[in-house]
Amino acid sequence: MLTKEEIATWLKGLQSRICIALEEADGAGKFSTEEWERSEGGGGVTRILQNGNVIEKGGVNFSAVSGKLPENISNALKLPPSDFFATGVSIVIHPHNPHVPIIHMNVRYFETLPLVEGGDAGGRGGQYWFGGGIDLTPHYVNAADATFFHNALKTTCDKFDADYYPKFKKWADDYFFIPHRNETRGVGGIFFDRLTNTEKHSKDNRFEFLKAVGETFAPVYTELMKRNSAKPFSEKEKQWQLIRRGRYVEFNLVYDKGTKFGLDTNGRIESILMSLPALASWQYNHTPEAGSAEDATIKLLKKGIDWV
Amino acid sequence: MLTKEEIATWLKGLQSRICIALEEADGAGKFSTEEWERSEGGGGVTRILQNGNVIEKGGVNFSAVSGKLPENISNALKLPPSDFFATGVSIVIHPHNPHVPIIHMNVRYFETLPLVEGGDAGGRGGQYWFGGGIDLTPHYVNAADATFFHNALKTTCDKFDADYYPKFKKWADDYFFIPHRNETRGVGGIFFDRLTNTEKHSKDNRFEFLKAVGETFAPVYTELMKRNSAKPFSEKEKQWQLIRRGRYVEFNLVYDKGTKFGLDTNGRIESILMSLPALASWQYNHTPEAGSAEDATIKLLKKGIDWV
Repeated sequence: MLTKEEIATWLKGLQSRICIALEEADGAGKFSTEEWERSEGGGGVTRILQNGNVIEKGGVNFSAVSGKLPENISNALKLPPSDFFATGVSIVIHPHNPHVPIIHMNVRYFETLPLVEGGDAGGRGGQYWFGGGIDLTPHYVNAADATFFHNALKTTCDKFDADYYPKFKKWADDYFFIPHRNETRGVGGIFFDRLTNTEKHSKDNRFEFLKAVGETFAPVYTELMKRNSAKPFSEKEKQWQLIRRGRYVEFNLVYDKGTKFGLDTNGRIESILMSLPALASWQYNHTPEAGSAEDATIKLLKKGIDWV
Repeated sequence: MLTKEEIATWLKGLQSRICIALEEADGAGKFSTEEWERSEGGGGVTRILQNGNVIEKGGVNFSAVSGKLPENISNALKLPPSDFFATGVSIVIHPHNPHVPIIHMNVRYFETLPLVEGGDAGGRGGQYWFGGGIDLTPHYVNAADATFFHNALKTTCDKFDADYYPKFKKWADDYFFIPHRNETRGVGGIFFDRLTNTEKHSKDNRFEFLKAVGETFAPVYTELMKRNSAKPFSEKEKQWQLIRRGRYVEFNLVYDKGTKFGLDTNGRIESILMSLPALASWQYNHTPEAGSAEDATIKLLKKGIDWV
């Protein structure tokens, strides 16, 4: 039976491989490493790259936390009082150049204890599930890049289940949405949660899918860095980037469930909020000129666009 | 009987008087004016000053909204399904100079309909209350300024009830607190909510108190502008200001009930989020040097400091 320790060990390895790939693509920046412990159980390794060549601020976090599930979370997840174990890798990269998109990935495993042999969801005492996703937030939407990105995700998904990509793509559109702005956060990607074993998919098979998603990140994002990081940009484009980052802050602090889970479980605050950019801006009533590149981007921050 | 219309009219006048006082103290900036309507009922006037002499970004909002109370709010307030009316003035000022503090004020009136003669809280169909507060967020805590500020609030409070200042000062310490940082937002001030008529205080008397709080704002803040806006500052101090503003963003988006009320009632988003600064920064694991002015400020961001 696949154990939580095996999953955590694999995820920790993923963190290392991704940091190596990002450092190589950046060409200058190096990730710092902080190991931390959580007083209630478990801990993590936070790796941050600041002021690189391409990356302005990026974090690649691993954590494996455990203990008593806080009551607000067990209520929100509709679970009985339980012990829990949660492990995952979370990434957010904010580049210098406004033509390089922001990217986010999370792959995670969650279980309540005791978990019984065979890993059935509910019933005999414990539950488990995998969750995660990757989504892209360009400051300027580039259709070729968005199509490349979604094609890569679809290729990964299709290896496991032809229903995954359409279902998880829609889920990302719905999840990475800022209701008060009536905008999606970016061009979406995939999002999935509560993947457990079914007749069609064993626990091992779900884990293989999670691993495939995790391994999709580095080749896809380093390609997007390569394509865009040498493009020239103006002061106006930099200003627009700061405004788009403001929206990113709004989503993460108001809506993101990962951030909320981290705050509610007394996670390490500097690791949780590594997702926030080095600099962000809010201008009152900022409205892009009709027909501008900024206006074109806003028009593409909608649900339901088929990039593939 | 004091009507909601009288209260709203007075608040709208307060908005104008404060804008005039702030423009005079700024010496250069002028407030823009946007009137807006809420599709479900009511509307407001948003006044914003950007890129003034002293003020980098400031908003002085008036609103008077009405309609059916959204269910999530009636649940949160433990009210039955109701129509509601809410009117208030909300202010947030972000100055250029890190030695000038950020300030926030809110004075508001809320009622559920139908409201009966005499305005009793609960019972015969309707409820009403006044709420509000003023709090100060220095980027660098200046003890003389904090004492001046708290003395002014105490003087206003003491005219109405000797219990007000100690009670509302403690309430502000508890409310303007960022649990995930274990920091108060600044040096506090006063915060109060659900002030309705009691044996000791009539509705008229509660309104007179609200008015006195509203009128305390302009003389106090323009004095703090005058005292501090000509002080020189370094690049390092400017950087620290941006980090403190990041904390302000965290409080407003994660915890502030006014922001949440605005988002939940489908308020005008640019008016609600006028509280966010033109520029804010997040640095991973930023820790002030021991013994520095920044370190001294952090040590004063605690509950329970007696500034009077």
